[in-house]
Amino acid sequence: MDLHLKEVKVDGDVAFEGKFLKLQSDTVRLPDGKTSNREYIRHPGAVVVLPLFVDGTVLLERQFRYPLDQVFIEFPAGKIDPNEDPLDCAQRELQEETGYTASDWEFVCTIHNAIAYSDEHLDIYLARGLTAGESKLDDGEFLETFKASVPDMLQWIREGKITDVKTVIGAFWLEKILAGQWKL
Amino acid sequence: MDLHLKEVKVDGDVAFEGKFLKLQSDTVRLPDGKTSNREYIRHPGAVVVLPLFVDGTVLLERQFRYPLDQVFIEFPAGKIDPNEDPLDCAQRELQEETGYTASDWEFVCTIHNAIAYSDEHLDIYLARGLTAGESKLDDGEFLETFKASVPDMLQWIREGKITDVKTVIGAFWLEKILAGQWKL
Repeated sequence: MDLHLKEVKVDGDVAFEGKFLKLQSDTVRLPDGKTSNREYIRHPGAVVVLPLFVDGTVLLERQFRYPLDQVFIEFPAGKIDPNEDPLDCAQRELQEETGYTASDWEFVCTIHNAIAYSDEHLDIYLARGLTAGESKLDDGEFLETFKASVPDMLQWIREGKITDVKTVIGAFWLEKILAGQWKL
Repeated sequence: MDLHLKEVKVDGDVAFEGKFLKLQSDTVRLPDGKTSNREYIRHPGAVVVLPLFVDGTVLLERQFRYPLDQVFIEFPAGKIDPNEDPLDCAQRELQEETGYTASDWEFVCTIHNAIAYSDEHLDIYLARGLTAGESKLDDGEFLETFKASVPDMLQWIREGKITDVKTVIGAFWLEKILAGQWKL
């Protein structure tokens, strides 16, 4: 049962709580019986939406990400609100960020993006049957949307123009789904 | 020049510095002229190694990740030391964690894993010409290694058994490289 790998909490508490991030610091018992410290971000989880049009193109966003001081190409995504169902969150975020609603939703996969220092997980959904509408961006949120084909996305991954992990993984899954190799 | 998306630092400082994590909190000017707060982890960057044997299998690790309280299947990886060259880091981490050295190294891609709240980037390298040796794990580091084929990895991604983003992306790249579709 992986007891030779497992670390067990001895004690710990929130070490920093900002406006946006919460950081936990725990003392843990290691597999060899020694103790050590583990610090990590406590994250509520997030969703990612792969909005797929009938013509095979997808809806993408360009958004400035301050920690890296650059604009990223991304699939729509957002943090799960307290007690919010992940699918409800996916539907809310797609509409808020892009204005689009979708009639057909399917779960794709869950990914973990920073396992050394965050408990974040991202649930990815495929959204089809898209209808355009009005976006309602959060205060302080700025982004623009555009359409691209999956082959274009794969080329941009290869060239290093798409580097955001949720977007890279979404594109690779879409290639499998569109080829009929992977069914949801 | 994306000025309609860009956020500019007004001021800021390190808000928390633990044994392992450093958290920055900045005041920024938004595209609409308002100010807001941005908090993020300051990370030195990391490397990921895709160790590929002549028979087409790869070397993987099983490692317990405390923030998520579970064992993950991962490619070898590690943080870049101050002033360390990323390729030197990749060679060091492969040897420390698995004992293997490699004669043939190629850069694959850079990915960004938590663009909303971390400046971390990961440089992925393909390592071939592998020779087994003695591992030298860091104090407090526990992991085991095993071999798997890339088709097995893709099946595990599909089933949700591999969810770590660097490992998912490495497997998808390896499929393209081994099929001759993508050249490095």
